[in-house]
Order: sequence, then C-alpha cells, then structure tokens
Amino acid sequence: MTAAWVGVCCSQPPCITVSLRAATYSHGNIVERRAFTVNIPSDRYLKETDYIGIVSGRDTDKFSATKLTPVKSDLVDAPYVKEFPLILECKLRHTIELGLHTQFIGEIIDAKADETVLENGLPDMRKVNPFLYAPIARKYYSVGKYLGDAHDVGKQL
Amino acid sequence: MTAAWVGVCCSQPPCITVSLRAATYSHGNIVERRAFTVNIPSDRYLKETDYIGIVSGRDTDKFSATKLTPVKSDLVDAPYVKEFPLILECKLRHTIELGLHTQFIGEIIDAKADETVLENGLPDMRKVNPFLYAPIARKYYSVGKYLGDAHDVGKQL
Repeated sequence: MTAAWVGVCCSQPPCITVSLRAATYSHGNIVERRAFTVNIPSDRYLKETDYIGIVSGRDTDKFSATKLTPVKSDLVDAPYVKEFPLILECKLRHTIELGLHTQFIGEIIDAKADETVLENGLPDMRKVNPFLYAPIARKYYSVGKYLGDAHDVGKQL
Repeated sequence: MTAAWVGVCCSQPPCITVSLRAATYSHGNIVERRAFTVNIPSDRYLKETDYIGIVSGRDTDKFSATKLTPVKSDLVDAPYVKEFPLILECKLRHTIELGLHTQFIGEIIDAKADETVLENGLPDMRKVNPFLYAPIARKYYSVGKYLGDAHDVGKQL
C-alpha cells in the first residue's frame, strides 16, 4: 500500500513508525505476519505509487497491475518491490491503537539500497530521488535544491 | 530544539510523533509539562533552525541567540516560535521507550498558520516553503517542483 503516515522514531535500535487504518488490507497482514517492508519509490514510479494508494489489495493484484516485481524478503515475512531503490525490512515491535489509525513500530532488521543510488556507500538524496506528499491538498512534489549542510549552516548565524 | 524524527501518526484524533533522546533538554521539558509544540520553519529560517539543533537549551537561550520570538501557547504549556509559519500545539498522550530515543505521541489540540501561507484556507506547500533534512548525509534540501495530484496521477497508469 501507499502510506502517508510514516517516519523514523528511534536510531538505536533503528525503528520506523507506520500508521494505518484498520480498514486497510495491509493492516491485517502486518498484524498476522508481525512484519512489513517500507519501500521508497523514486519519482519515475510516481504513477505506480499513486495507483497503489487508490486500489485495494483485497480485489486487485497491485504488483501485476503496476508491472512491479515482488521479491521475498531475506529476513522477514513480507515482500518488497524490486524496482524501488531503498527497502527496509522490519519486524513489528509495538502496536499502539490511537484512534482512526493504528501505529505500528517496526525495528529495521535490514536496509537494502540499489547500487546506483549510493554515494560513498550510503543512499544519496539526489540519486534516490524520492518525492513528497502534501496531505489534505493531496499533491506530490519533487525534492528541490541542496540548501546546505546540517550542523554547519547554523554556525553562520 | 530541532528534531529529525517527527511524523504524523493518526488522523482522528490528529496525533504527531516526536522522538527525542533522553539526554536532550527538551525531553525533560516534555515529560514535565506533558505538552509540546511543533514549529515548521520556512527556508528563510534555515540558519536559525540549524543553529537550534547545534546548541543546547541548558546553556544557551536559543530565542535570544536567533532573535526569534517565543509566544505562550493558547492551549498547552509550551512556547511556540512567532516567526515560523505553521504551529501545532500538542498534548502528550503516549510515551514509548524505544531505546536511544523516547517516542512522544502528542494529540494536536490546535494548529496555527500564518495568513500569508494559506491557499483556500489551508496551508500551501509552496507558501509554507519548508525544507527537508537528509539524515546521515546531514544535508538540507528545498521542496522542488509540483509533480501531480494524489489519487489522480495513478489513474493514468
């Protein structure tokens, strides 16, 4: 599924939070498998990513419809998208019912990056080239220009 | 403080997650006040925002050093930054110890937006003009070009 409410929530152990409505097909899968993957698309997959957020896995084979390729994860019981440049394999650690959304906190067990998006061995923003989602307005934006280094530009104040 | 691990985690009630290391000054403040604000800077405040992430509130008056203006929140016991275009006043609802970071989940009690960033009564990405942070690489990026509407571009697949 395409999820908007996602974010890092711990550095050590590395954890990521994904909040889903109980009505979604993915919600049931995560509860059952106690695992999930987070797949970061590059902007060339904007249409596929949006499509995956429109239809439900209950009645549509999203991999087949988008011509994306499911791959079995190495370490967790969940598939990932072969064509997406950055993949996080996660084991479910906490489930917190907040209201309309359930917050799932997963420990990142493995991170995979396509060789082509690496710079000095780490994923590079320019090369991953992900895109942003503005909720409510429901608009997508690209990543813009480099503005400066963190823990550095502030020294010029 | 400047926080990297932040994200929406529920739509109803509206909740936001902020994960901080126990060593930070803000961590103690949130535990004590059971409240916090989230302040979204526009890119004209890049240097100030970075500076706020370099120094500690234990030994530096960050408002004074950055010439930003603290304002007492209307509904929660925490200040906000007058100059930043988008403010969320939050009451602490959940505290989850994850490891190096503590995850604070706050219910958004009020949202304030500068009149100049509104479009049809809602904050507009182009007008708020926030910026992105790439962790590990520690680089800031602007928001780039509009790519399309969500729940729409996928129909062209």
